[in-house]
Amino acid sequence: MGCPVSIGPEIILRQTGRYRTDGPVTPVVVGDLGVLRRCAEELALDVPLSAWIPGTPLPSSSLAVVEVSRLPARELAWGRPDNATAAAMAQYIRQGVELVRQGVLDGIATCPISKAALQKAGFSYPGHTEMLADLTGSTDFAMMMAGQRLRVTLVTIHCPLSEVPAQLTGQAVARMIGITHRSLQRDFAIATPRIAVAGLNPHAGEDGLFGSEEQTAIAPAIEQMRRDGLQVEGPIPPDTVFFKAASGLYDAVVCMYHDQGLIPFKLLHFKDGVNVTLGLPIVRTSVDHGTAYDIAGKGVADPSSLAAAIDLAGTISANRKRTDLQP
Amino acid sequence: MGCPVSIGPEIILRQTGRYRTDGPVTPVVVGDLGVLRRCAEELALDVPLSAWIPGTPLPSSSLAVVEVSRLPARELAWGRPDNATAAAMAQYIRQGVELVRQGVLDGIATCPISKAALQKAGFSYPGHTEMLADLTGSTDFAMMMAGQRLRVTLVTIHCPLSEVPAQLTGQAVARMIGITHRSLQRDFAIATPRIAVAGLNPHAGEDGLFGSEEQTAIAPAIEQMRRDGLQVEGPIPPDTVFFKAASGLYDAVVCMYHDQGLIPFKLLHFKDGVNVTLGLPIVRTSVDHGTAYDIAGKGVADPSSLAAAIDLAGTISANRKRTDLQP
Repeated sequence: MGCPVSIGPEIILRQTGRYRTDGPVTPVVVGDLGVLRRCAEELALDVPLSAWIPGTPLPSSSLAVVEVSRLPARELAWGRPDNATAAAMAQYIRQGVELVRQGVLDGIATCPISKAALQKAGFSYPGHTEMLADLTGSTDFAMMMAGQRLRVTLVTIHCPLSEVPAQLTGQAVARMIGITHRSLQRDFAIATPRIAVAGLNPHAGEDGLFGSEEQTAIAPAIEQMRRDGLQVEGPIPPDTVFFKAASGLYDAVVCMYHDQGLIPFKLLHFKDGVNVTLGLPIVRTSVDHGTAYDIAGKGVADPSSLAAAIDLAGTISANRKRTDLQP
Repeated sequence: MGCPVSIGPEIILRQTGRYRTDGPVTPVVVGDLGVLRRCAEELALDVPLSAWIPGTPLPSSSLAVVEVSRLPARELAWGRPDNATAAAMAQYIRQGVELVRQGVLDGIATCPISKAALQKAGFSYPGHTEMLADLTGSTDFAMMMAGQRLRVTLVTIHCPLSEVPAQLTGQAVARMIGITHRSLQRDFAIATPRIAVAGLNPHAGEDGLFGSEEQTAIAPAIEQMRRDGLQVEGPIPPDTVFFKAASGLYDAVVCMYHDQGLIPFKLLHFKDGVNVTLGLPIVRTSVDHGTAYDIAGKGVADPSSLAAAIDLAGTISANRKRTDLQP
């Protein structure tokens, strides 16, 4: 459910009508029934809700809610997280992970959380992903942004642009190519993934004329992964690689820095992009937007990203079950 | 006409059918009639061509060609520029500028040139734009990439990514906002241009967490231009500003580096993007692709960018005539 006073409850209620309990995906909310009921009432969203105890049969015609918290729903203020909402939010994540590990649920699609609130409540993780990695004992994880037209992974993420060149080692690039390749095979069921690697500099450096990182770090990493049998191309000029990928030439683009990947991704998938965590033992997708406290409770939130995140979690779970059975 | 052995002649012939001599734009080729005739013959493109002497009436039902060169058309090899083709190419540019300055033509839309060939032939310009700036005595010029959905200008262009932060001064950002504003008014006839300025770092630095250039250079430049009465917003997170601009919220985005602007621009306008030179006394647009020597003469070149460049040159010329008359 994410942060109880964010747009999370609203987008959960808004996307529910898309699913049938006998369809390929059955969403279950790990959160707070009272908060959802208040939200449904305030926004006049007619969504039947039921408390659900894991292990018992799922309700046939209402949305199942695992009651992890029972916050004083009427007293909460939309957009104003406090220590109680932050602690509840952290518990949703823990409980979600636990239910997946027990095999009760197949994967997690997470609504937005407040990192600041999480930290104020004493959970010292930079974000959702790091918390999930810690809860599942994962060290080699990464983020992929996935949409129908484009998938991108990032070698460097939240650092000043000026620090990107120094962080770009051949090892870091090779690692990200490897993680991307394995996820495309296992999570997206692509037998022979075609991966594009973007250059760092204009025109991918134009033979060293505009920078040398292509020659010192990126190209050697590509060569190494090719020797390992991966189908990898690059370094490709950043201003053409995304058009090619969106045209169907590549299954994913490995990007050198945050905006190199996020600019084209959000241009194509502003509303329906999904954040996928690669390298976890559990299936985990996430909306690619924030808590949007400024519009929480106002009835204008767009559920497209959550709907796409739930669908993709279902797809990845099904793919993993199939590919993990292969010799 | 650009480089005579590039895709220039083919794309000129392919877009001609779109124009009527009594329409808003009448294209005239400044180039080589023999080369165009050979190209038309080889690719079976049925385009009537006529030599035209500036000052005489335009032909009514054929494409007018100012014969600047008479290269041995049959002996040229597609994709292989030599000193003769390079010298001819340079002459097309000089002659085009001259005809516009004389008022015979209203503007120039340039086909691709080979910078390497230009330099080998003794013309020491880094490219087309610099040559035009020199020929017209312009010092405060800039490049805009323009399409139906997005217009971008660039504060830094052809430099390694690692050198971008040091080149980003408040003065450079303010200068580019100013040039962009004046062009939107004069060339695009937008009375009150709405300009977005992208940040440099992820999330536009998130209050200094991921870099400080937003605070030290970009925001002060925006403040300065606002005090001058311009409608400027930013620094806006790079991964959202282009979606907003393409949705119609802004008339142009001032970008901090080459790929920040070119990645989203080419994603939306891969085939029909136009390069506009701002700050010249003459109207000048250009295709936004290169000579494509690998496919020259093969009959597979796409004329969309040239067609858009010719249309936009016509529009800018008409706008300038109108706006220059206003008090």
